Amino acid sequence: MAGKRIGVVLSGCGVYDGAEIHEATLTLFFLDRAGAEAVCMAPDKPQHHVIDHRTGDETGETRNVLVEASRIARGKISDLASARADDLDALIIPGGFGAAKNLSTVAFDGPDATVDEDLAALVRAMHDQGKPIGALCIAPAVLSKILSEKGVTLTIGDDEGTAGAIRTMGNVHQESHVDEIVVDSANKVVTTAAYMCQASIGAVGEGIEKLVREVIRLTQ
Amino acid sequence: MAGKRIGVVLSGCGVYDGAEIHEATLTLFFLDRAGAEAVCMAPDKPQHHVIDHRTGDETGETRNVLVEASRIARGKISDLASARADDLDALIIPGGFGAAKNLSTVAFDGPDATVDEDLAALVRAMHDQGKPIGALCIAPAVLSKILSEKGVTLTIGDDEGTAGAIRTMGNVHQESHVDEIVVDSANKVVTTAAYMCQASIGAVGEGIEKLVREVIRLTQ
Repeated sequence: MAGKRIGVVLSGCGVYDGAEIHEATLTLFFLDRAGAEAVCMAPDKPQHHVIDHRTGDETGETRNVLVEASRIARGKISDLASARADDLDALIIPGGFGAAKNLSTVAFDGPDATVDEDLAALVRAMHDQGKPIGALCIAPAVLSKILSEKGVTLTIGDDEGTAGAIRTMGNVHQESHVDEIVVDSANKVVTTAAYMCQASIGAVGEGIEKLVREVIRLTQ
Repeated sequence: MAGKRIGVVLSGCGVYDGAEIHEATLTLFFLDRAGAEAVCMAPDKPQHHVIDHRTGDETGETRNVLVEASRIARGKISDLASARADDLDALIIPGGFGAAKNLSTVAFDGPDATVDEDLAALVRAMHDQGKPIGALCIAPAVLSKILSEKGVTLTIGDDEGTAGAIRTMGNVHQESHVDEIVVDSANKVVTTAAYMCQASIGAVGEGIEKLVREVIRLTQ
């Protein structure tokens, strides 16, 4: 049996302006260990901004989301705009502020956020085809916006502000710990809080390992 | 018992011009899972160059090794120049071209490479104090240069050119597979080939998990 093809949507390279590196890497690691093939993709557009990760300050540089994300993918990555749901068995969206600033405007607009059109179209197509979708950290809020008013159950841990935004979007928030996942079997949506919690990389990895396993199980 | 403090020397953020992201992240992951504390550090200096990881081309940008490495460390990182062997129980150097271009000139000068002076001083001090040192991927060649003519046994997998350079430096190269480690117990040096081999992230992780375990064991 050929391995399942799982799309991994990256949003740059670095927790404060891109994809959270540990979450993205551990997603790729556990997918490979489970015998699945990761298909990395990212939007070909400028990042919202560039942050010096030591200080939290903007640097004034301009960087491209796809180019930076290709660092995590070791160059093996394609433009999100060319992704087709027919070619994938499932989709996983790691977190980091890139999900909330580059893939969407969730960081700035909360429940009124807009979402990258290519991502929204891909997620809707996957959902329409009954294929599982996983999201980590803040990415469940982006997923919630795309699947507004569908009553999907998701988790972002225990941050009340973000949980409230998810409820305003017409979905259900379930509190969780970092090493847990929340599974909405009817919608085939699997989420884990990851670094939305103050947690170590080992604890974050526990949740991601469970999420990857469950996403793959739901492709059966 | 407090966890061991293990220095992790980063060299940027991205396989072609910095620290290999998967190797660095999995090192942090397995250290945390083993109950050790990772102490991330990198030199505060410009990268040799910046590479577009999709194309392999130089971009002409200027980036700082410490600033980029802080993406992998989620901001929790210090200047390599301020690191002291007395504060650490062991040291691990992940690979990526950053080790061969930013931490040293191994990529350009092979056995005649120069090495970042702060790194060389730290490694010599750790070695003099009998503390274990781990190195991944191409980093064993950098370690070999620092510990020239000491007859240390290391591995970089099976790349004959790099193996020859290690022998020219007065050390011993031992071939290995990606999921293996080579342990020089007398010198307390542990190495694994990681992405020097054509391998999946899962296989690379196997070698890194073994390396981390052995480095911690040797601190006893």
